[in-house]
Amino acid sequence: MANWLATLDRRAQLRARAGLTRRLRPRGAADGAVDLAGNDYLGLSHHPDVTAAAARALSEYGLGATGSRLVRGSTDLHDALEAELAAWLGAVRSLVFSSGYLANLAAVRALVRPRTLLVSDAHNHASLIDGCRLSGAETLVTPHLDVAAVDAALAAARGRPAVVVTESVFSVDGDLAPLAALHAVVREYGAQLLVDEAHALGVAGPGGAGSVAAAGLAGEPDVVVTATLSKALGGAGGLVAGPAELIQHLVDTGRTFIFDTALPPAVVAGVLAATRLARVGDPLRIGDRPRSGDHLRTGDHLRAESARRADHAVQRLRAAGLVVSTPAGAVLSVAAPDAESAVAWAASCLDRGVAVGCFRPPSTPDSRSRLRLTINVGVPSADFDRALDVIVATAPTAARTAMEETG
Amino acid sequence: MANWLATLDRRAQLRARAGLTRRLRPRGAADGAVDLAGNDYLGLSHHPDVTAAAARALSEYGLGATGSRLVRGSTDLHDALEAELAAWLGAVRSLVFSSGYLANLAAVRALVRPRTLLVSDAHNHASLIDGCRLSGAETLVTPHLDVAAVDAALAAARGRPAVVVTESVFSVDGDLAPLAALHAVVREYGAQLLVDEAHALGVAGPGGAGSVAAAGLAGEPDVVVTATLSKALGGAGGLVAGPAELIQHLVDTGRTFIFDTALPPAVVAGVLAATRLARVGDPLRIGDRPRSGDHLRTGDHLRAESARRADHAVQRLRAAGLVVSTPAGAVLSVAAPDAESAVAWAASCLDRGVAVGCFRPPSTPDSRSRLRLTINVGVPSADFDRALDVIVATAPTAARTAMEETG
Repeated sequence: MANWLATLDRRAQLRARAGLTRRLRPRGAADGAVDLAGNDYLGLSHHPDVTAAAARALSEYGLGATGSRLVRGSTDLHDALEAELAAWLGAVRSLVFSSGYLANLAAVRALVRPRTLLVSDAHNHASLIDGCRLSGAETLVTPHLDVAAVDAALAAARGRPAVVVTESVFSVDGDLAPLAALHAVVREYGAQLLVDEAHALGVAGPGGAGSVAAAGLAGEPDVVVTATLSKALGGAGGLVAGPAELIQHLVDTGRTFIFDTALPPAVVAGVLAATRLARVGDPLRIGDRPRSGDHLRTGDHLRAESARRADHAVQRLRAAGLVVSTPAGAVLSVAAPDAESAVAWAASCLDRGVAVGCFRPPSTPDSRSRLRLTINVGVPSADFDRALDVIVATAPTAARTAMEETG
Repeated sequence: MANWLATLDRRAQLRARAGLTRRLRPRGAADGAVDLAGNDYLGLSHHPDVTAAAARALSEYGLGATGSRLVRGSTDLHDALEAELAAWLGAVRSLVFSSGYLANLAAVRALVRPRTLLVSDAHNHASLIDGCRLSGAETLVTPHLDVAAVDAALAAARGRPAVVVTESVFSVDGDLAPLAALHAVVREYGAQLLVDEAHALGVAGPGGAGSVAAAGLAGEPDVVVTATLSKALGGAGGLVAGPAELIQHLVDTGRTFIFDTALPPAVVAGVLAATRLARVGDPLRIGDRPRSGDHLRTGDHLRAESARRADHAVQRLRAAGLVVSTPAGAVLSVAAPDAESAVAWAASCLDRGVAVGCFRPPSTPDSRSRLRLTINVGVPSADFDRALDVIVATAPTAARTAMEETG
């Protein structure tokens, strides 16, 4: 009996020796740190329209959804959000899940038929990888962003169903998949393209509709989009968007949809309000602390500010000799010499009031550790600039002199 | 390209012919139906203490958690809830996930070592089954509630690590696993016992601490408990509770913990309030509509009322010639002749203002369709009695005369 606990302990010691122990850092409601760690890209989690919509639904519907949507009934809020998301993305239909992880598990499985080959980018998120595993389909992992490798894989599998699985903006380095080129290959072989827009929705594309829309692929019948509602939309949950046949298939057979309690109505209402704010024409009242009065911003203005800050951050950090990825959205990474110094670096930043992500294996797609920074336009501009100074000032010497490029 | 959509369409037609098409039934905040479908067993989703705590956290923390707990920081609310849940369950530590599905995926995977044999009850929930699949471990499915089969499986695997995986109160028929007998076998062979208390937490056991506690197994080092926060606790999310080594292992390596946005702080705050109410000594102000003034009830009083109603429902429905399971918690099933008549029966109930679950394959552990009824003590007593009358009055003739026993 004690045997299994001893095994867990032994594994914990191995992780500790490799600098891979994780600690849950407590935070209060107002933790004072400048947030370059979270994914509240547009600052919508605190927008008064968002919290007011959630509070209203909380008082009307109660806390939880009290069951799965098929058994307990599907609230009108879920319907409204799915219609809004589908219209935004240019998809025929969308379906909301209680997390992005569960949406990805369902999406991959729904696309798999007998003999399907899954072609999965080497940097894909854990939820896509688990989706491939859980589907039981043969999965070929292609090098990161390598369209030629995808082409070769599909050519070798001619006559079999095939699905190419990728993120658009990748979660660690913030780089962008070559979606148009991937789609051309997919179309040529009669395959499907599954794109996880977790870090692109609300941030990239026309009106924030994501990188698939930016690539002119919105609504294509061989393209399926997944995303989270917990990043630029400030809430929680996930979605799958695509052809009506696919969504009905998920309603009928998607295990992580059927056998899961629905997303709480209050969260749905808040995300719906956030979605309306993030779409282009809507006025926003967030962003920089107003210098004079209450200035209004649209989603497009916020996205322009996000892009400006991302450019500035890359220039500032590279000028200091750090190795920085080239971000396509609101995520970028800074290379660390190793796991332990990444932890120490992030801790030094936090000591100085700046929260950054510390990404080590298994959270990185390769063996290299990084700081991951997010560009959250809800952070006041002066605080953002100061945060960059802190990151530079606390950088370990080996990070400054590192000559290798991050992926 | 159109090929895959045609395949989905063909599959949809096959499902339609078998009566297995699912439809999302819309509902508003006040849909008027008597709820015998949802899992709000203690009525806590609408309790004023619960919604007030959630509303307070919403205004303090914003809508979403804005990131995973390791990257964005773990709110003090998450810490407080985990401490409260561990104390309630008599476990050393607990860890909250954003859904019960994700908690089960993580728990099974964390218990698997090289050469582990998983022994899984035939009626286990989809999330446990997917957990077994995703773990990659050899999985033996034993007949429902069959301790001798589990014993034989462990005897045949002597010398290998082994984990017995079961629900306590099963989700469809509401019957109870023989936990003490299973644990005796597990202990004999030095295996582990993983118990999903989704339908037992808050409903069964001393102070609502679940069936594991009722069986005297709380805190045993070879027992791991999972549960949802979305049923008796009225919110959303899931938990794993067990030895400290296991919880640290999950923090360090659990993919559905590490790579998932945390449960929204407002939901955590609401569930924390619900947990305090559900524990024995706390006054509750819900249940039957007060006849005179505002009467207070404790969790134990609510559980006694739930048990009384379950007994009454079984007697009433059996007296009408229906085939009814023997519930160990707040869930029971009524056999239907086939999938299509189950759908028609549930629709007739809804037409008369009574929402019931309609469980068809793949939501049933065998090929048989049922109505699934839940005992929610938040439903006024008179409405509950009327709902039973409606179920009897709308029963198809073949259901009344059915002689077979449900599992």
